[in-house]
Amino acid sequence: MESHSTATVVTFGEAMLRLAAPDHQRLEQAVSFDVTVGGAELNVAAGLSRLGLSTRWISRLPDSPLGRIIRNRAREFGVDVSFLSWDPSARAGLYFLEPGASPRASAVIYDRAGSAFSKLVPDEIDWNAALVDASAFHTSGITPALSDAAATAVRDALAAARAAGIPVSYDLNYRAKLWSEERSRAVQEPLMRNVDILITTEEDTRRVFGITGSDYRDVARKLVDRFGFKVVTITLRGDTSVLRNTWTAIAYADGIDYDDRSYDIEVVDRVGGGDAYASGFLYGWLTGETTGDVARGVRYGNAFSALQQTLPGDLAWVTLAEVEAQLSGAGLRIAR
Amino acid sequence: MESHSTATVVTFGEAMLRLAAPDHQRLEQAVSFDVTVGGAELNVAAGLSRLGLSTRWISRLPDSPLGRIIRNRAREFGVDVSFLSWDPSARAGLYFLEPGASPRASAVIYDRAGSAFSKLVPDEIDWNAALVDASAFHTSGITPALSDAAATAVRDALAAARAAGIPVSYDLNYRAKLWSEERSRAVQEPLMRNVDILITTEEDTRRVFGITGSDYRDVARKLVDRFGFKVVTITLRGDTSVLRNTWTAIAYADGIDYDDRSYDIEVVDRVGGGDAYASGFLYGWLTGETTGDVARGVRYGNAFSALQQTLPGDLAWVTLAEVEAQLSGAGLRIAR
Amino acid sequence: MESHSTATVVTFGEAMLRLAAPDHQRLEQAVSFDVTVGGAELNVAAGLSRLGLSTRWISRLPDSPLGRIIRNRAREFGVDVSFLSWDPSARAGLYFLEPGASPRASAVIYDRAGSAFSKLVPDEIDWNAALVDASAFHTSGITPALSDAAATAVRDALAAARAAGIPVSYDLNYRAKLWSEERSRAVQEPLMRNVDILITTEEDTRRVFGITGSDYRDVARKLVDRFGFKVVTITLRGDTSVLRNTWTAIAYADGIDYDDRSYDIEVVDRVGGGDAYASGFLYGWLTGETTGDVARGVRYGNAFSALQQTLPGDLAWVTLAEVEAQLSGAGLRIAR
Amino acid sequence: MESHSTATVVTFGEAMLRLAAPDHQRLEQAVSFDVTVGGAELNVAAGLSRLGLSTRWISRLPDSPLGRIIRNRAREFGVDVSFLSWDPSARAGLYFLEPGASPRASAVIYDRAGSAFSKLVPDEIDWNAALVDASAFHTSGITPALSDAAATAVRDALAAARAAGIPVSYDLNYRAKLWSEERSRAVQEPLMRNVDILITTEEDTRRVFGITGSDYRDVARKLVDRFGFKVVTITLRGDTSVLRNTWTAIAYADGIDYDDRSYDIEVVDRVGGGDAYASGFLYGWLTGETTGDVARGVRYGNAFSALQQTLPGDLAWVTLAEVEAQLSGAGLRIAR
Amino acid sequence: MESHSTATVVTFGEAMLRLAAPDHQRLEQAVSFDVTVGGAELNVAAGLSRLGLSTRWISRLPDSPLGRIIRNRAREFGVDVSFLSWDPSARAGLYFLEPGASPRASAVIYDRAGSAFSKLVPDEIDWNAALVDASAFHTSGITPALSDAAATAVRDALAAARAAGIPVSYDLNYRAKLWSEERSRAVQEPLMRNVDILITTEEDTRRVFGITGSDYRDVARKLVDRFGFKVVTITLRGDTSVLRNTWTAIAYADGIDYDDRSYDIEVVDRVGGGDAYASGFLYGWLTGETTGDVARGVRYGNAFSALQQTLPGDLAWVTLAEVEAQLSGAGLRIAR
Amino acid sequence: MESHSTATVVTFGEAMLRLAAPDHQRLEQAVSFDVTVGGAELNVAAGLSRLGLSTRWISRLPDSPLGRIIRNRAREFGVDVSFLSWDPSARAGLYFLEPGASPRASAVIYDRAGSAFSKLVPDEIDWNAALVDASAFHTSGITPALSDAAATAVRDALAAARAAGIPVSYDLNYRAKLWSEERSRAVQEPLMRNVDILITTEEDTRRVFGITGSDYRDVARKLVDRFGFKVVTITLRGDTSVLRNTWTAIAYADGIDYDDRSYDIEVVDRVGGGDAYASGFLYGWLTGETTGDVARGVRYGNAFSALQQTLPGDLAWVTLAEVEAQLSGAGLRIAR
Repeated sequence: MESHSTATVVTFGEAMLRLAAPDHQRLEQAVSFDVTVGGAELNVAAGLSRLGLSTRWISRLPDSPLGRIIRNRAREFGVDVSFLSWDPSARAGLYFLEPGASPRASAVIYDRAGSAFSKLVPDEIDWNAALVDASAFHTSGITPALSDAAATAVRDALAAARAAGIPVSYDLNYRAKLWSEERSRAVQEPLMRNVDILITTEEDTRRVFGITGSDYRDVARKLVDRFGFKVVTITLRGDTSVLRNTWTAIAYADGIDYDDRSYDIEVVDRVGGGDAYASGFLYGWLTGETTGDVARGVRYGNAFSALQQTLPGDLAWVTLAEVEAQLSGAGLRIAR
Repeated sequence: MESHSTATVVTFGEAMLRLAAPDHQRLEQAVSFDVTVGGAELNVAAGLSRLGLSTRWISRLPDSPLGRIIRNRAREFGVDVSFLSWDPSARAGLYFLEPGASPRASAVIYDRAGSAFSKLVPDEIDWNAALVDASAFHTSGITPALSDAAATAVRDALAAARAAGIPVSYDLNYRAKLWSEERSRAVQEPLMRNVDILITTEEDTRRVFGITGSDYRDVARKLVDRFGFKVVTITLRGDTSVLRNTWTAIAYADGIDYDDRSYDIEVVDRVGGGDAYASGFLYGWLTGETTGDVARGVRYGNAFSALQQTLPGDLAWVTLAEVEAQLSGAGLRIAR
Repeated sequence: MESHSTATVVTFGEAMLRLAAPDHQRLEQAVSFDVTVGGAELNVAAGLSRLGLSTRWISRLPDSPLGRIIRNRAREFGVDVSFLSWDPSARAGLYFLEPGASPRASAVIYDRAGSAFSKLVPDEIDWNAALVDASAFHTSGITPALSDAAATAVRDALAAARAAGIPVSYDLNYRAKLWSEERSRAVQEPLMRNVDILITTEEDTRRVFGITGSDYRDVARKLVDRFGFKVVTITLRGDTSVLRNTWTAIAYADGIDYDDRSYDIEVVDRVGGGDAYASGFLYGWLTGETTGDVARGVRYGNAFSALQQTLPGDLAWVTLAEVEAQLSGAGLRIAR
Repeated sequence: MESHSTATVVTFGEAMLRLAAPDHQRLEQAVSFDVTVGGAELNVAAGLSRLGLSTRWISRLPDSPLGRIIRNRAREFGVDVSFLSWDPSARAGLYFLEPGASPRASAVIYDRAGSAFSKLVPDEIDWNAALVDASAFHTSGITPALSDAAATAVRDALAAARAAGIPVSYDLNYRAKLWSEERSRAVQEPLMRNVDILITTEEDTRRVFGITGSDYRDVARKLVDRFGFKVVTITLRGDTSVLRNTWTAIAYADGIDYDDRSYDIEVVDRVGGGDAYASGFLYGWLTGETTGDVARGVRYGNAFSALQQTLPGDLAWVTLAEVEAQLSGAGLRIAR
Repeated sequence: MESHSTATVVTFGEAMLRLAAPDHQRLEQAVSFDVTVGGAELNVAAGLSRLGLSTRWISRLPDSPLGRIIRNRAREFGVDVSFLSWDPSARAGLYFLEPGASPRASAVIYDRAGSAFSKLVPDEIDWNAALVDASAFHTSGITPALSDAAATAVRDALAAARAAGIPVSYDLNYRAKLWSEERSRAVQEPLMRNVDILITTEEDTRRVFGITGSDYRDVARKLVDRFGFKVVTITLRGDTSVLRNTWTAIAYADGIDYDDRSYDIEVVDRVGGGDAYASGFLYGWLTGETTGDVARGVRYGNAFSALQQTLPGDLAWVTLAEVEAQLSGAGLRIAR
Repeated sequence: MESHSTATVVTFGEAMLRLAAPDHQRLEQAVSFDVTVGGAELNVAAGLSRLGLSTRWISRLPDSPLGRIIRNRAREFGVDVSFLSWDPSARAGLYFLEPGASPRASAVIYDRAGSAFSKLVPDEIDWNAALVDASAFHTSGITPALSDAAATAVRDALAAARAAGIPVSYDLNYRAKLWSEERSRAVQEPLMRNVDILITTEEDTRRVFGITGSDYRDVARKLVDRFGFKVVTITLRGDTSVLRNTWTAIAYADGIDYDDRSYDIEVVDRVGGGDAYASGFLYGWLTGETTGDVARGVRYGNAFSALQQTLPGDLAWVTLAEVEAQLSGAGLRIAR
């Protein structure tokens, strides 16, 4: 159960306290908020740790009970937090979540301005130390949106990883509430040359890079053509309703198209579904008979994500055995 | 955000404490009840206040913590409560709600006999004062069912409104647990001559007035023919299951039929859906380029109602901006 | 409301504390567990009591607050607990429940080893006394799986019932977490000769007796042919998804096939659905114009089970009036 | 554990749903109410059942989920409910509880007018049947306050008990919210001639009978002198603060004074403390070496009451073993 | 019950969402936060509204669900919110509360930097309009600590009130987490010349103005001597323990010393106790036979505060009748 | 904040799921249980980790969601779990907690028979590996009570630690529900020769070793005399009531007596108070200017324990800064 590989996946980004309205209430009517923790790159590290890999999360937190809640959750998932830096006075990033029901979509209110992470100091992180023993590095398009220093840190991290021969995974994760499409493109286009695996959606690709295509595969091919990624993988969520979704993903690598079955999901909480896919994809990609098994990555990513969306919270309380049971055709009957 | 119009929609009726079994439990197995507030005419006033209109609610409450809970909730929604009258000794009306799941329908137990409202004293309300500055008056078929004095008060209110040239809206709202079809008809038929806008369902129309038709439009036309309403609007709920409904409404006015798209609803709480429709309809009808925009009324009514049914409680924690986003084709994706 | 028949249905088996993760959480992430009580044969006794029959539950509990919780729940349902025996030191059986959502199935963790029931002492129960005034005896395939003494007690109970001319109902209820198919068959085959009514599923029949057939009816016929049951009834759950199921049952008796409508269920909690069917079947079978009305049994069983699955917990907080309303075509609309 | 004596203590009175504000909130600010069950005479029956006696509760309930909640709780405590009568249409009595903290006293709002119990029909209860096998009969001054028919039923019950030689216990329980001191006296004075054991407080004695004295003992003596009771027992609560009380009781019988140690109580919920005393007193009085052991009654009453006040709810989730441990000098240390 | 005076008490300051750890948990271990609303000047307005005065609260909120929660709560208490201004993009001020138990003191984490209030624009508020019909103006030392514009607004408000002859009440409320003692003094000393009533503690007086004295009265006299206040009132909390406090206050006006009884409080939530005192003091001071009854102010202030500290939340869910019952010697016994 | 020393304190023992009745309910009346984690030696490791030391916990858990909950909590506190061993089939140890209120003491029900820990296999743990880099080793008298293999493992661990020159701390922790005084003495006396620091109470010393004395100091001296401990420290809890305790400790080492101030505690949860003392003592003892500062150990132990008892759960959500603030005389006032 504790057979973590020795090599470590390193992720970099902010995690926040998540304050969610319970019991299908709207935020405005709630008298209590459920408190959990989330943030794209912590979600990915936590997911990889669940699947059995060694992980390290690079971030910055306030030295307060709220910062400690976030640190504690990372530790609870077995993520190495020894590279966290602590801010004595800044605030904790927060986000408020209001789960929806058709026809009302779920909604997020970010309250992360002025957070400890956003106050990252240039050159604060020694990337060579942070990437020691790394088997992969992962970050997302949220991180460079948070501050200039964060964008610079992402640039430096990618360069350091490339220099060290460490594969880089990047989830495009466009967040309109954080920056404009224009600025998002200007900052991220230069970063892409050091990215090996791009995880994205058709919509984010269009908004950030202005790339559209005749179908998903075409979009993936155009991304590879423009940026030279080793792998592009595109997640596909079908919104049957707010509480019923379909989920699958495709990938394109080395001129080959990959796809997988679609999952019907009774959505308990869709937040973190993309991050769970990233976790599962990286797990599958890293742990096949040879590193770089894209088909395995897509299958593990989809199963892990589908399971993660059936539980509350950003984080994936799922086991490798459960993922593999899905891949072997687990049914819907109660086991007893 | 606080651009309430100066004219005021006045509503009249009882509101109750609502005690609901939580977490899909049955009433009989619950060890706590969720406490909210509801009542058709308060629901309509609160809904109109959410949409930005000035509102006033005429009612009668016990001078007790329970009565104050009801008053507080009205105030929280911005409804003018200065015309409430307070009973020093009567009880608060209650209703117990048990949400269902197919094939078990939701159920309501009324416990409102002897309530402060039911003890309304004849001529207690000075309708000329209560209707000052009114842009419309709204009540429903529940109010005259509660006591003879309440029925008389409805009669007087309608007459006063008609005399003052204030448009009257009336939701037929037949409640079999309060009175028989026969008595309901005997009391309400005379009231109809002072009603401008009738809001009803096909079933209530049949039970109260014995009117049936080849289709919804035909029912609406017959109602106009018999009573001379300016507008008849009929709501149409499709019970795909207890927790999945479709919702739309049609209207008929000045010889013209109006209809609208149907909403697929993942029902969190269907109680108050009709009242939310009434709120939205009145809002649309009152605030178009010219007063009396029936098409706008139907569209705002449907969107407001569909959104209201996705949250717990009778009251519509929805904003005008959200309604208008629905009318502009808002999707089901999370916004972030 | 309290018109219990004088004859008593006696059931025999273990009941446990059930500890369930709330609010769609996984067990691993929960910080509180909902505490209820369940166990196949108590569930059946409680269901029969709800429907108006006199019931008695034979079991064994620890003399501790946890044992008393279980006893209290049985009493709350009106089940006679005067034949319980109390163990001064053994533990209470527990089971942990994790409700699922597609594609993640619900899961049960049994923690019942060493329970007071499993420490049943041979000959502890005086079956002639326990079966006094019995109109039927019911147990299930869970009971003999719990210990050798329990298996012996089942054997003795069935023999005593047969000797006294009391009809015996047996729910096959195969639990892979308790014993192997092989052992299950070896222990239970000899018991079957004293069983009158077998309640089972197609899957359990295959796993325990190795019997398969061209369809459900064929399986039922083969069971009757092999064991000489008076009635075989097979429940049929359709897993549209984890939270949407269809439910029906068929029966075969005296060469006649019986079937019934299918229910669409919005599943709040599927645990206990089979036991509710057993309760409803026995109620219908015992209370027709003449005892032994199989068609009535199937219809009451299906309606009772469909309603029970819409509420949390193993136990059926349902009334006879509600069952009969379903049989008369109750709709999905809220009653008020 | 189930060694109930064969003789049965019969009690008569109303029980209500109790709706309490949780977490030290005031009623007006609560958004949920904790739902339990309480009523003086049910509380006494439940307490006696906990202590091991056979009990029967005579009352009247609505045939509704709310009425069934009350019935279920009585059954859960092992109280015989076969003499309940069911009203098809009346409401359930309710009471709202707001726990206090110094200097704010706890408060109760009764909402019991029109309850099923208050609609008791004269001669509805066959007292000879209801008192079969009774070892004692208990009611309180709340019951005759509820309606004329209830007062008549108390009169008839006391006469029937006296005629049958069954000891009658009566808790004076004056409730100013139900009737005036004058009316309370007029109704109850004639009842007292058939009462054997009077349970009261100094304050209630003064308010109902106008009796005061130089000290508690003097009051008790005057009561015996005026009414000829066999036993008078007076409970003494010291309000150190709302959440810290002292508790003891004295008694006077056959010319002898009885007293007991005082208990320091960290009050979790004081409601039902007097009823718990009555239960414990009757238990001790009935189960000594000879019936009528007043000293034993006082000691069991005080210990049972002190323990009951440390848990939420009217009902006494306490065991005989725990009472006897208190009597043997149990300490405050955790047992493990 | 709704006999608000026509003159209006106007208050000015920020209110925040308050997120508190429930059930005596520490913030770091909580998985949900209780959501209420608080802020010194809203607390005072809400308190005065509870006591029957007309109130208006001047503030600035984000146009978001979180801002609306704060607005809603003010409205629920009957406070006029028509002078609120709305910020389309700023955040809501938050504060996190961790209730303590001896020897661990309660703790507050402010998270209000960047709030809508702190972004107040100079001259945004038309004080002549805001003070129309004002019978008094109240603010506290928290407001000028929030931003330069806020300090300027306080200065302008005090000048406008003085010019209009409106009495000004000022609670010194020193918050070390917001500013230094030095800066607090520099900003506030000039404000004091327009203050009529100063509400403070001995400690705040020392920290802000460097004034100490031989006893409380001496401190009050020195304040009057230095600043020329009409009234100085000093609250005195005795920390017997974290959960048991004593509370009283003294005042000095026109050369006369005032004091009052001390209250023993079982503290449910001490936050807002000082604001409740301010509300009660102003109520008493404004509503005596002649305005300016200091003795009445102190007595109403103490009773209102003592009651407010027995309930959760900053806001005073207390009625005038309850305050007056305390003043008449209400006991600790449950009323029923 | 993350300045853990490089040397590691190693602890050995079982941790359980703790299921506690919420809201002052008794176990028998609860419908949910609060789920946390506790066990003496995990509690000590977690406490030391909070204070900034590196820690490792040696234990054995079931490979199930319940086992993972325990592992997760250890990780959350930063405890190294790499030496846990996992049992594929055994159960998780549980304990049920019922918090008391005077005069009802709190109560614990152990349900740990058959747990994964109790099934420890002889020689399963490689103590030389487990103790690498250890600065101290800690276990308690609970561990050898759990099984013969556990007792053997304790013996081997102590011998290995002594051989490696690692200081050994041992908390006597007598649990009458686990073993008799006689067996406890027989097993533990031989262990004591390898113990350096004995943590105990006067009562446990008497029950296990039969040692009594004229006062606490005398008991401590006799323990040193008999067993040759370097340090004996005795904790002293004063049960003013169940919810108000005093707490202090004394120590004796090298012929010197040590004592400390007494803390008045408003007890939120007393479970784990002794373990918190052990954590604080070891922290103080290990981190003084020279290792072995007994006075510092006692002071840190008392302050840490006093704070831990003010929060729910076995584990000490307390920071070093808070402990040191207590040692510097922190008051009871809210900080803001």
